[in-house]
Amino acid sequence: MNAPQAINRRFILARRPRGEPTLGDFTLEKHPVPTAGPGQLLLRTRYLSLDPYMRGRMNDVPSYVPPVALGEVMTGQTVSVVEASNVEGFEVGDLVTAVAGWQDYAVLDAKQVAKIDASIPRLSYALGVLGMPGLTAYVGLLDIGAPKAGETVVVGAATGAVGSVVGQIAKIKGCRVVGVAGGAEKCDYAVRTLGFDACVDHRDAGLREALAAACPKGIDVYFENVGGATLAAVVPLLNIGARVPVCGLVAWYNLDKLPEGVDRTPQFLTQVLKKRIKVQGFIVFDHYQRMPDFHKDMSAWLQEGRIKYREEVLDDLESAPQGLIGLLRGENFGKLVVRVSGS
Amino acid sequence: MNAPQAINRRFILARRPRGEPTLGDFTLEKHPVPTAGPGQLLLRTRYLSLDPYMRGRMNDVPSYVPPVALGEVMTGQTVSVVEASNVEGFEVGDLVTAVAGWQDYAVLDAKQVAKIDASIPRLSYALGVLGMPGLTAYVGLLDIGAPKAGETVVVGAATGAVGSVVGQIAKIKGCRVVGVAGGAEKCDYAVRTLGFDACVDHRDAGLREALAAACPKGIDVYFENVGGATLAAVVPLLNIGARVPVCGLVAWYNLDKLPEGVDRTPQFLTQVLKKRIKVQGFIVFDHYQRMPDFHKDMSAWLQEGRIKYREEVLDDLESAPQGLIGLLRGENFGKLVVRVSGS
Repeated sequence: MNAPQAINRRFILARRPRGEPTLGDFTLEKHPVPTAGPGQLLLRTRYLSLDPYMRGRMNDVPSYVPPVALGEVMTGQTVSVVEASNVEGFEVGDLVTAVAGWQDYAVLDAKQVAKIDASIPRLSYALGVLGMPGLTAYVGLLDIGAPKAGETVVVGAATGAVGSVVGQIAKIKGCRVVGVAGGAEKCDYAVRTLGFDACVDHRDAGLREALAAACPKGIDVYFENVGGATLAAVVPLLNIGARVPVCGLVAWYNLDKLPEGVDRTPQFLTQVLKKRIKVQGFIVFDHYQRMPDFHKDMSAWLQEGRIKYREEVLDDLESAPQGLIGLLRGENFGKLVVRVSGS
Repeated sequence: MNAPQAINRRFILARRPRGEPTLGDFTLEKHPVPTAGPGQLLLRTRYLSLDPYMRGRMNDVPSYVPPVALGEVMTGQTVSVVEASNVEGFEVGDLVTAVAGWQDYAVLDAKQVAKIDASIPRLSYALGVLGMPGLTAYVGLLDIGAPKAGETVVVGAATGAVGSVVGQIAKIKGCRVVGVAGGAEKCDYAVRTLGFDACVDHRDAGLREALAAACPKGIDVYFENVGGATLAAVVPLLNIGARVPVCGLVAWYNLDKLPEGVDRTPQFLTQVLKKRIKVQGFIVFDHYQRMPDFHKDMSAWLQEGRIKYREEVLDDLESAPQGLIGLLRGENFGKLVVRVSGS
């Protein structure tokens, strides 16, 4: 496979975006395929995951991991196949998850990859419902949100990789589940296919009223992955003792300066105080010890048909930049992945 | 004592303030002393507690308890003496805590009062270090903030009824403690008398730099009781996994509209996300089950001289309105109480 003429296409970060990224922020480079040294694996990318957090890595600000450097390959989780192995226990053809980035090939140490369980329904699920986004939904909802049967759970980006799983787990736990999504088609899908009790459109001018009507007993858990107008509509409806796991703030990722107008922080914290609300940020990396529980539960729920999962698959590595730009606009419908090689 | 000519002076809420309260928002009324019915006690107020939360009760907005109605007696915790008892187990002369409000006399049911332990060092301590403010500090710091030895704890209103106790408990637990207070005299007191490691002045233009210098290892617990400029200085210094018990927001209590400028909510929540911060509002009423532990610990710490406690005592009920106005401006130095009768 790794024929002499094979090349490694890769996208590097060419420029730090201000606001929304543009295609010019990424440069496609062509390099020779690298060679695995002792103790290393040569991996070929099958699927690349596109996720909102990638926007944060394009900024030169400290976060839980360092930003992507200018000239460096864009980061990203992949499903990859072993093309050459200098590691005992790994054979050519083995399928693994790795953070191989936006490129065709990568050389990694064995400890940087994890073999994919052969029972997986589809390979790409290792980047979604059975991977990081699924675990994110699981620990954020269950361990931080701690919903009780009969409570009302609200989740934004309701048809996305994380939101769709949050809502369906909350239904399994006996909650009333209200989604927030962009557009009638997604709202329809959240209710008819995912089984949410209601879903409101964040593009509607009447978002506040619609959300209030969908949550007649207020909101006990708000799984925060969007921020923006959704958060503003949620806050007045939070009940005493509500929990707000903060997983993402995609509506704000492209902000290059703070919104003009009034400072709503006092309003937000006054609600936190009066209603004894718990707001807690979390990062999936801190919760890997829950992986076995997650994997067992999620595999069973998928098999029983209790969790539905939708993907949007882009073809070819070169569609990745536009894919990320669209993801940040909410243009995708379901978990966004890029098929880089294979079928 | 309850001579025929005795009258009950009381302050009613005459008008809802916009912004800072003014003397005209309160009206002094004179009424006959009420009479205790069956199962009731006639109480005479000895000390009235003045606390920042009272500002919130003057607004017509729902909170954890209903607001004071127009024409109703201003709410407030008191140390009171039983003047007449129709309840078995209560004798004339017994000392109790009650929510008797801003008045000389009140009639309450026995279940609305609690007898004061005879071992109390000073009667007024039942409204402060051994009462609600003390318990607030104790549960907020220990149960929500959960500081570990060696961590850095920051507390605003550092010489106030709650803040001074928070900082001293944190010192007992082996933390580095940095206070924020208004003016050099208070900062001095926090360090020299209360034993804080440092205290910075929130009136200084260089607050951010001063706080950063005082917290070389960042901030692990921020006990939030002020909001405003202090919060803005704290947020960039919060460490990964920091805890922020939200107890009060006194800098914002007099806001009648949100501050103009930019909306800092995205900034705040982005920090919460990236640093996995827990922000949790709490109200002391939800934590009464901790009263026995608190009382045991605090009594011992006082006796051992490990907790210092300062009061500012105003004389006469009629000083209460100006006292509250000054409290909201930070003019008091120590726990503010009004001596209404007795010595």
